[in-house]
Amino acid sequence: MIRFECDYLEGAHPQILKKMAETNLEQTAGYGNDPYCDSAKEKIRKLCGEADVDIHFLVGGTQTNCTVISAVLRPYQGVLAAVTGHINVHETGAIEASGHKVLALPSEDGKITADQVRESYEAHWNDADHEHIVQPGMVYISQPTENGTLYSKEELQDLHDTCKELELPLFMDGARMGYGLMSKINTLTLEDIAALTDVFYIGGTKVGALFGEAVVISHPALKKDFRYLIKQHGGMLAKGRLLGIQFDTLFTDGLYFEIAKYADDLAMRLKEVFVKKGYPLRFDSYTNQQFPILPNEHIEQLRKKYSFAFWETVDDSHSAVRFCTSWATKEEAVSELIRDIEVI
Amino acid sequence: MIRFECDYLEGAHPQILKKMAETNLEQTAGYGNDPYCDSAKEKIRKLCGEADVDIHFLVGGTQTNCTVISAVLRPYQGVLAAVTGHINVHETGAIEASGHKVLALPSEDGKITADQVRESYEAHWNDADHEHIVQPGMVYISQPTENGTLYSKEELQDLHDTCKELELPLFMDGARMGYGLMSKINTLTLEDIAALTDVFYIGGTKVGALFGEAVVISHPALKKDFRYLIKQHGGMLAKGRLLGIQFDTLFTDGLYFEIAKYADDLAMRLKEVFVKKGYPLRFDSYTNQQFPILPNEHIEQLRKKYSFAFWETVDDSHSAVRFCTSWATKEEAVSELIRDIEVI
Amino acid sequence: MIRFECDYLEGAHPQILKKMAETNLEQTAGYGNDPYCDSAKEKIRKLCGEADVDIHFLVGGTQTNCTVISAVLRPYQGVLAAVTGHINVHETGAIEASGHKVLALPSEDGKITADQVRESYEAHWNDADHEHIVQPGMVYISQPTENGTLYSKEELQDLHDTCKELELPLFMDGARMGYGLMSKINTLTLEDIAALTDVFYIGGTKVGALFGEAVVISHPALKKDFRYLIKQHGGMLAKGRLLGIQFDTLFTDGLYFEIAKYADDLAMRLKEVFVKKGYPLRFDSYTNQQFPILPNEHIEQLRKKYSFAFWETVDDSHSAVRFCTSWATKEEAVSELIRDIEVI
Amino acid sequence: MIRFECDYLEGAHPQILKKMAETNLEQTAGYGNDPYCDSAKEKIRKLCGEADVDIHFLVGGTQTNCTVISAVLRPYQGVLAAVTGHINVHETGAIEASGHKVLALPSEDGKITADQVRESYEAHWNDADHEHIVQPGMVYISQPTENGTLYSKEELQDLHDTCKELELPLFMDGARMGYGLMSKINTLTLEDIAALTDVFYIGGTKVGALFGEAVVISHPALKKDFRYLIKQHGGMLAKGRLLGIQFDTLFTDGLYFEIAKYADDLAMRLKEVFVKKGYPLRFDSYTNQQFPILPNEHIEQLRKKYSFAFWETVDDSHSAVRFCTSWATKEEAVSELIRDIEVI
Repeated sequence: MIRFECDYLEGAHPQILKKMAETNLEQTAGYGNDPYCDSAKEKIRKLCGEADVDIHFLVGGTQTNCTVISAVLRPYQGVLAAVTGHINVHETGAIEASGHKVLALPSEDGKITADQVRESYEAHWNDADHEHIVQPGMVYISQPTENGTLYSKEELQDLHDTCKELELPLFMDGARMGYGLMSKINTLTLEDIAALTDVFYIGGTKVGALFGEAVVISHPALKKDFRYLIKQHGGMLAKGRLLGIQFDTLFTDGLYFEIAKYADDLAMRLKEVFVKKGYPLRFDSYTNQQFPILPNEHIEQLRKKYSFAFWETVDDSHSAVRFCTSWATKEEAVSELIRDIEVI
Repeated sequence: MIRFECDYLEGAHPQILKKMAETNLEQTAGYGNDPYCDSAKEKIRKLCGEADVDIHFLVGGTQTNCTVISAVLRPYQGVLAAVTGHINVHETGAIEASGHKVLALPSEDGKITADQVRESYEAHWNDADHEHIVQPGMVYISQPTENGTLYSKEELQDLHDTCKELELPLFMDGARMGYGLMSKINTLTLEDIAALTDVFYIGGTKVGALFGEAVVISHPALKKDFRYLIKQHGGMLAKGRLLGIQFDTLFTDGLYFEIAKYADDLAMRLKEVFVKKGYPLRFDSYTNQQFPILPNEHIEQLRKKYSFAFWETVDDSHSAVRFCTSWATKEEAVSELIRDIEVI
Repeated sequence: MIRFECDYLEGAHPQILKKMAETNLEQTAGYGNDPYCDSAKEKIRKLCGEADVDIHFLVGGTQTNCTVISAVLRPYQGVLAAVTGHINVHETGAIEASGHKVLALPSEDGKITADQVRESYEAHWNDADHEHIVQPGMVYISQPTENGTLYSKEELQDLHDTCKELELPLFMDGARMGYGLMSKINTLTLEDIAALTDVFYIGGTKVGALFGEAVVISHPALKKDFRYLIKQHGGMLAKGRLLGIQFDTLFTDGLYFEIAKYADDLAMRLKEVFVKKGYPLRFDSYTNQQFPILPNEHIEQLRKKYSFAFWETVDDSHSAVRFCTSWATKEEAVSELIRDIEVI
Repeated sequence: MIRFECDYLEGAHPQILKKMAETNLEQTAGYGNDPYCDSAKEKIRKLCGEADVDIHFLVGGTQTNCTVISAVLRPYQGVLAAVTGHINVHETGAIEASGHKVLALPSEDGKITADQVRESYEAHWNDADHEHIVQPGMVYISQPTENGTLYSKEELQDLHDTCKELELPLFMDGARMGYGLMSKINTLTLEDIAALTDVFYIGGTKVGALFGEAVVISHPALKKDFRYLIKQHGGMLAKGRLLGIQFDTLFTDGLYFEIAKYADDLAMRLKEVFVKKGYPLRFDSYTNQQFPILPNEHIEQLRKKYSFAFWETVDDSHSAVRFCTSWATKEEAVSELIRDIEVI
């Protein structure tokens, strides 16, 4: 079985394991107060254009989303997000468990617009009974989205301007950030993102690390006491240096970008064959996730040799599925899959 | 200004005030452990066909919804409800603040169907990653709904059967229960409702009381320790007898039903004039709330003399509005409004 | 049975019922936006020395405590309180249910000191691992305390100064405020209290109202969006004018103070007989709650005719009990109890 | 600087890193549904005497405590624990953030007794107002405790019997379980612990793993839907096999026990020198944590070369401190410390 169902099928990039082995017996302080975390933060700060940001390392995505959102919102506020957003559909209600409503906005492709944010905001404040309604308190977006799509610089600028005007902190979930940054249609740098969001994170788990997410906070009010929230949400790893070592390695000599580009390139080869084959694409993704719509019998046939994710039923005889590549996907595996699709 | 904007504009039915004055200096135990609460419970139990139910009195609707839902759900479960349901839109996120997601189902008229419940349930359990998704844990409906519409006995039976089969407790918000029970198209008795739901409540606040909601629990597991939850949610009134006195009065000699019928009848007179006038109805309500769609200039003109609630924009020149009647609405006020509409 | 077990055994002061009956059929806007609430707020503001305060009316004490504390604290903060404080022992964990730890301080008499607050604060911030520990975020006190004792002006000034210095908002629970204000040893006015706390409330439930607590907020940051929190916590009464009418009546012609003084005077008569009889006092209270320590056989004998609350076991043959007076306690009842004690 | 301040100063036992490197490029399903987790579970189940238990792997201790406690308690229930328990003092209120009060019991040495549990339980249920008080819903203990002390088999049996009788699930935090199991005074096996608790965990983070805690559930009701709770609490690692690999390695050829014994033996050598030196011991620990009371000048002198944790001030000139050993502590480091203490 050759697996394409997600981008966390293997361990970590070998350089990470190597570094972990080399430093294994060093003694360092716990909870992220170690030189590896410091070094990783310095590298990330540099990539963010030396912005005045606080950087923290957490273990996983659900935890990170929940921690950041808890840091921002007052108890009666909710978070605006695409109805397809990870926090709305794939975190077992972790946001609600921390007391907050996800205010879901319709979305075809996983993105939301500045106009949608403004309309929600105005609808709230124009309601005579607004005190009876959850107040929009922040905006959550993902880059890339759950559907592999990307915000352009202009779209992000619009969101930023609107959020700034409405005093809604803008939070970007970057669980797959690398694949977005290296997409051939991408127009955003980490420096842009640090400037245009109030808080975002750079995903490790899905881009070469064993685990870990690097949160970058620019909004001054969110910086205060953030470590308390990390601890309360179970995200403060005792051996915090494991996170430092991983991100330090990923941001040494551009490894993070190199492996993300590798995965994106493989995904583009898959996209090409889907198009050539005449498979419609459920979402027009230029990142490591591809969402072709296949005849169900093709799906069945491919399943004998490959694993990939069911996405949704399209009609009686077709379904959308998801293929993911990653730093660890083998070129031969992709070539083999392409050949098999060509002749199916 | 003659007011029709809601059904809680006045105090309480005079018989309630009278009873409160008569008993004012009696000494009774606090927190609902008094003879008036006992007597009111007995009367409600009788109306429920002597069902094996526990009855509790709480102060308000948001509090009651939140208390009941907290009693039912496990932390990772959510409550299925119409997207227009009170808990989803008008409680400032009280359900989420208690840790639970409202799983909103589309609804045109405020109602949801047994089929929708089943589809949601199946969609959840058929998802390979269902542990990453909030689990449907109960069903919330309102009778009448926020839109004045009613479940028929058949529809409620269907919901009951489906919920029973899927082991989802069924909860009915009856904040305006009286107006539903006395509607000319109603097919349900309190006895039916006690038999077909796991827990429901009979609203006092909007049907003649100063305040108060009577929760009726038939599901055995929900009965356990329910008073702890009332207290934790701030719903255990120190002078609990005030609730007992009110419900005891309302359920003496059918007062509750009589005053609800009075309000429904007045609402039907309004409905008639709306139809005659050619105003479309946003929802086809046979209860005390009416939702005509008016030209905006008519709205402006009527506003000089009457207050009523804006509901939603229909098009550039029309809006839906809400008129409510209650036990306290004066017949002359309705007649005057009708005359003014006829000549507008 | 003559009852002394608490101060919420009867209904409301007759003037309140009278006013409710007189205004019963008036139509007013809901949720506290009515002229009676406005008038009551004006009177309270005047009593607070025309301070720049926001005033809100809630239904009950647990709800009020929980709403205020939620308004103040960040998610990782806790509230410092006497171990005997109401929020720590008698609210079924409502504070914890809203996500916050009660940081209990030892107390012999129900009071805490400025020094205790400072020590807790310093212990927290001096701990190298303070991010692993709940951060003290505010201070909760009661006036009178659960034990009937009172803070002097000097003690409150000390708490205020310390809290100000440490940036810990100071919250005073005044569920029995009236009995404190009118105590013969009291040194604090409402004006003092408004100046020396960040938020406090004036209890109605236990001092002549059917129910209701008037929250007075001076801290600017707490004022923002407070009504959202009231609604979320189920404290926004639909017929909000009921609260306005009650507090407006209580603060007309000094009724609130007059009835509290009446109760305190009766309690002092009880205290006198306890002392004369040689009963030790568990707490030295000059308010409407009295806590004598009685031989168990005396307790048994008195229980045949009177109800009063068991407080705690003192030794094998003695227990502390609580007698409460209120605006509704009859002078004859007190005289009869005194005579019975004298000859027991 | 030679570090003794905690037992998570280094990475993981080299065999773990080796196994992680060997398996790095294998493709496995995510979220713990992989053969390494299966194998590790099998080994743990065997050590528990083939008990009918469910086993889950989480990332960290705070997360695990919070997840388990959320699984057990109803919203109005609290968890009985020693006042010194980790959940009460070192988790930034994570338990309260999930809605539950920690019901702290006094403890001199970190342990609580079956009698204390019974007294708390009875005090609750004997209180006439028990519905106003948090209901004891479970019992939390640690083995070893925060103070390095151990429950004997008899003590655990007593707790078990009492908890069973009172229907309070018994939960054992085993963050340092290995050091307890291998202590020379230990009387408990994993099989005993599985039989005498309802749920417990075997700590990896502090006993040789990079991170990870293995939860073992015997109570049938707690097994249901536990994975939802793991996910909601951010504990479901995407690359779950990392946990499987670590625990599988630790429980192959007794590695877990061997390295724990090694650490305990070194700690005993330290204890011996403390005693010989005449330092009183704050707690009489036979595990890897040692708590001598030192003159402050000795502390200052030792700090030049060694790091160790301040525990508490004893008097003006003495403080209790903590020295920890672990699988990674070097024998030479211990010998050097011993020599330095001997001549100080």
